Amino acid sequence: MRVSVLGCGRWGSFIAWYLNHIGHEVTLWGREGSKNLEHLRASRENGILTFDSKIEITSDLAAAVAHAEVLAISINSQNLRELLARLRGHHRGQPLVLCMKGIEEGTGLRLSEVAAEVLGPVETAVWVGPGHVQNFVKGVPNCMVIDANDDGLRRRLVEAFSSDLIRFYYGADLIGNEVGAAAKNVIGIAAGMLDGLGLTSLKGALISRGPREIARLIRAMGGDELSVYGLSHLGDFEATVFSAYSHNRRFGEAFVRGEPYDELAEGVRTTRALLTLGERYEIDLPICRAVSAVVHGGRDPREILSKLFMRSLKEEFY
Amino acid sequence: MRVSVLGCGRWGSFIAWYLNHIGHEVTLWGREGSKNLEHLRASRENGILTFDSKIEITSDLAAAVAHAEVLAISINSQNLRELLARLRGHHRGQPLVLCMKGIEEGTGLRLSEVAAEVLGPVETAVWVGPGHVQNFVKGVPNCMVIDANDDGLRRRLVEAFSSDLIRFYYGADLIGNEVGAAAKNVIGIAAGMLDGLGLTSLKGALISRGPREIARLIRAMGGDELSVYGLSHLGDFEATVFSAYSHNRRFGEAFVRGEPYDELAEGVRTTRALLTLGERYEIDLPICRAVSAVVHGGRDPREILSKLFMRSLKEEFY
Repeated sequence: MRVSVLGCGRWGSFIAWYLNHIGHEVTLWGREGSKNLEHLRASRENGILTFDSKIEITSDLAAAVAHAEVLAISINSQNLRELLARLRGHHRGQPLVLCMKGIEEGTGLRLSEVAAEVLGPVETAVWVGPGHVQNFVKGVPNCMVIDANDDGLRRRLVEAFSSDLIRFYYGADLIGNEVGAAAKNVIGIAAGMLDGLGLTSLKGALISRGPREIARLIRAMGGDELSVYGLSHLGDFEATVFSAYSHNRRFGEAFVRGEPYDELAEGVRTTRALLTLGERYEIDLPICRAVSAVVHGGRDPREILSKLFMRSLKEEFY
Repeated sequence: MRVSVLGCGRWGSFIAWYLNHIGHEVTLWGREGSKNLEHLRASRENGILTFDSKIEITSDLAAAVAHAEVLAISINSQNLRELLARLRGHHRGQPLVLCMKGIEEGTGLRLSEVAAEVLGPVETAVWVGPGHVQNFVKGVPNCMVIDANDDGLRRRLVEAFSSDLIRFYYGADLIGNEVGAAAKNVIGIAAGMLDGLGLTSLKGALISRGPREIARLIRAMGGDELSVYGLSHLGDFEATVFSAYSHNRRFGEAFVRGEPYDELAEGVRTTRALLTLGERYEIDLPICRAVSAVVHGGRDPREILSKLFMRSLKEEFY
């Protein structure tokens, strides 16, 4: 299959590496001037993986799109609308595979909805779930999930992309998998805050209560509340909530310790987007509210998180 | 409240320490000849916590029972029937609080069912959920859950036992909380096996798929499938699946590495009991089967676990 991967960050580069590794014909696109792109072009490695000579690297979006049967996209969620707008003149209806986790801030739209809004009706899949690039390139396997707004696309992609390194399961709830995948970054920030406050053992209560509020939101949006317990959300907690490497977890930890952090974690903007959705669907999201109160509201994290776990409701499920 | 704690292992001793700490009148019973009991009597500490002088320590079961308004029991699950049989002559109908996690091997009975079988109708509660003794004695708080076969007992206990150190939630499904609490030890063993095989990242898939099979079993037994996502099961994964200290996780890790381990983890016998229940209720339990195939069947763990995650079914939820 001829696949163009749009986005040459860590995950986009890995997807290009992986799809080439399992026999696909791969082009990797990055925007002109991107440091990642320049480095990859010059060295064909990014510190984690080394590119096979067959992978084409380009900053020519028209060429990357023209070449492809499928477009895999891995960029910051909040920039998706802009990239898709640039794509509009070149896109010939090829299916999209969104390899990214987020909800659009401001609109509260899922990423597949952003795609439909910009490009019109388009076959769109999401590729989500756990896995560290560092592990994959060492040959450590993992399970991930592909879901789509079209059953044929979902099946074609699972068949074409599965290997001994990544076992893909079929997702069966695009709403649940998109919202769940995005929301796990918020749980990751909360986990980091608990770690930073020396309250790591409360991560047990966090992983029990966190998915409940997201499940209620998913149900209100028309999805299946069980989806949150699949690979896209709960299944990603090993990587997001318990791994030292999770960007969102590290952000939360640094934030409550008052330590510097390089950039805003994706979960920060997802928190805002989820609260927008919570208002729209009238679902209370206490963990999202707590993260927002600390990150956006400047509230004391120890007070907010203690209140959340030690002084709030008494029934486990409500 | 006058509480007698039966069982002076690490968790029983902590419960005695905790209930005294929050103002209850506590007697701790251990069987005559128990090394833990002798050590506690001689030194009033157990390497983790130090007993206040008000805690009475005894090996006289009749006296311990006579003194108590409530009996908290914390012993190996498989010995519960025997202890309750010894209790029979002394028990005056006081409520039981089972602070332990297991299913009786052979019969597949939940521990509250074992109590009813031995003592007749008796108010029985379970106290389950996450928390390391080492953390609690340092003042690190956690959330746990109390459930019971009697709503009045459940409420009395949550009110009497809650503090700034342990926040109790009301459980609402005794079947689900008992089965879930027991089953988390099996997931802990599987997690240790993945760690021992260098497949730690598959713990994401494990924590997503493990609760699903237990949820199906709970539903078949008449409980609520969501209970497995509460504190008793999923909420205990921080301690059981991701903590270096989990006995069950360490057992699984040592087992696949062929390293010596001191004693069989409770989860080993729970695995057998769950498979008995799976047969009885016709629920497939692939993760329990895999653990059993390795521990009891001598099968190769890498082959069994790879097959489980990388080559079995394709739909996430079935």
